[in-house]
Amino acid sequence: MKKLINAIDDVVKEQLEGMAVAHPDMLKIHFDPTFVVRADAPVQGKVALISGGGSGHEPMHGGFVGKGMLDAACPGEVFTSPTPDQMYEAAKAVDGGAGVLFLVKNYTGDVLNFETAAELAFADGIKVQSILIDDDAAVKDSLYTAGRRGVGTTVLAEKIVGAAAEAGYTLEQCADLARKVNKYGRSLGMALTSCTVPAAGKPTFELGEDEFEIGIGIHGEPGRERLHMKTADEITEMMALAIIEDGAYSRTVREWDNEAGDWVEVELVDPPLQAGDQVIAFVNSMGGTPVSELYAVYRKLAEICNNKGITIVRNLIGPYITSLEMAGCSITLLKADDEILKFWDAPVVTPGLRWGA
Amino acid sequence: MKKLINAIDDVVKEQLEGMAVAHPDMLKIHFDPTFVVRADAPVQGKVALISGGGSGHEPMHGGFVGKGMLDAACPGEVFTSPTPDQMYEAAKAVDGGAGVLFLVKNYTGDVLNFETAAELAFADGIKVQSILIDDDAAVKDSLYTAGRRGVGTTVLAEKIVGAAAEAGYTLEQCADLARKVNKYGRSLGMALTSCTVPAAGKPTFELGEDEFEIGIGIHGEPGRERLHMKTADEITEMMALAIIEDGAYSRTVREWDNEAGDWVEVELVDPPLQAGDQVIAFVNSMGGTPVSELYAVYRKLAEICNNKGITIVRNLIGPYITSLEMAGCSITLLKADDEILKFWDAPVVTPGLRWGA
Repeated sequence: MKKLINAIDDVVKEQLEGMAVAHPDMLKIHFDPTFVVRADAPVQGKVALISGGGSGHEPMHGGFVGKGMLDAACPGEVFTSPTPDQMYEAAKAVDGGAGVLFLVKNYTGDVLNFETAAELAFADGIKVQSILIDDDAAVKDSLYTAGRRGVGTTVLAEKIVGAAAEAGYTLEQCADLARKVNKYGRSLGMALTSCTVPAAGKPTFELGEDEFEIGIGIHGEPGRERLHMKTADEITEMMALAIIEDGAYSRTVREWDNEAGDWVEVELVDPPLQAGDQVIAFVNSMGGTPVSELYAVYRKLAEICNNKGITIVRNLIGPYITSLEMAGCSITLLKADDEILKFWDAPVVTPGLRWGA
Repeated sequence: MKKLINAIDDVVKEQLEGMAVAHPDMLKIHFDPTFVVRADAPVQGKVALISGGGSGHEPMHGGFVGKGMLDAACPGEVFTSPTPDQMYEAAKAVDGGAGVLFLVKNYTGDVLNFETAAELAFADGIKVQSILIDDDAAVKDSLYTAGRRGVGTTVLAEKIVGAAAEAGYTLEQCADLARKVNKYGRSLGMALTSCTVPAAGKPTFELGEDEFEIGIGIHGEPGRERLHMKTADEITEMMALAIIEDGAYSRTVREWDNEAGDWVEVELVDPPLQAGDQVIAFVNSMGGTPVSELYAVYRKLAEICNNKGITIVRNLIGPYITSLEMAGCSITLLKADDEILKFWDAPVVTPGLRWGA
């Protein structure tokens, strides 16, 4: 294992310290428990958007803290869920009186811990909503997941809902928008190589010299299948069609009800993409794949969408939700209506995503 | 070799096609000869800034074409200099009557071909200036270079001089500023792994499981030495001190003289950094190293600068001048005066670098 790290136990802490020193204008970092908050938190009267999860996916989530995106991020150790006290303390630190919205990627540990944090925050008088992101069309259940995993749509949701919160949306409006973004977003990933978790010291899995894996998870969870290497066009087509031809996805999720002061079950159905849809297309590097290769993927993706009658109206291309130094990429297509596009285009100033200001 | 590519001969062309499809609001791409121009080129009355070089360093240079940065970029094949006709045609396409400034990284092929292009453009009545970037403190001469190589300062020069051109600087003022940025900028790189040039199909060099190379070039040219793996702090200290303790650098370069219609020799001396200096600190991924590890490097770099009395007033952290999928990083420190900071902070809208608009 060769990485630019010091002691293995200090990896996440030191990376966060580096971020704090680099971006004091955008964010601040608390330790014990650890969470990242925007520099001007709490913003009075604004809904506070909080996400988090295991580290190793940078810039997500800490790099998306700042004006127009997240109010707080709770980083766990590498590929390890953060604890409820991180989320609870973050909620108290950023609540500006309008409530907090948790954006939770669907991994069992994240879900459980964010649920506990929601209950603790509610008990303190903070209004809470919690929306699950489960957009990975690759597999139904996975190593750390009941149901679909939460992947690329998370980045888009953080941007879009962050802008809505900035614009004065109420907690319920922010939750509705987050639910819609998740409903309209679908992703699929692939890996050319494994990554190496520092504490493990060896690759999470092995891929042969002529192999890739389609449908891989962002922690190296098994995907759909391992195949002999193909061209960028062939791989892009496999990924794009898996997303575009994915059927309706139905499941039951738990959401917090501030009136009842309890969890309620909500039936959700994500409709498939169809001809005539406008989308935001997000081509993401898993970390080790350079942006040049992402453009080859984007070229084919644009052609496929065009042939399917799907119009790409915005795009995001680069390393935004990574798996350490894993080589590979993911594609996310998010059906975009006027509300989504308006908040996508709004200004954002974070270390990882910035435009319009 | 596993990469997201199709036929090896089409790699650069298809990546550029992807970029053109993704960013029509920012840039356009011409083929045969190949060059990237900003979408609204030529901008009448504005100095046009042109750079270029071998591909494989994305987002540099094509990803830096757009408002507030480059007017044109000329991409060669991977790690191969572009040809004079690319640069000449680009100059004709973007000249808005105020002349063109070539920013040329110091590699023998790039230098020769940009010189030919300058002569051709001048013969067509276009005012030309050509400024060499030679900021790599690692080695005096190198595999493809007489004198120091041009590396990370190029990105900063493109941003700063691009903003000055946007603000109405004359060709001579732009050239003076570019010369100053190069004078004040110093870089050093390191590699954890090699990269693989698609046409070669195998790694450019081999590094052992416990080795890194300090002072590496962006094409995998040999650096100062290969060492057993060290911690991020130790590696950062080696790199930072090599830059901070670098002495004055004197050499003679050729610049174009529009009055004489010929090349003239110019004596240049870059002074060393010293306590009291303010700097822009640029921590760059060579492609395969994720941004999380760059923050560990930045953390130590900030501490070292502080101890040396050097104040980091701005930073840039991410993959901006890469070597395909090479793992490793580089550090650039650019002494920054008010003029440099003003143009650093100015708006920029390119695929690879964007803020303020």
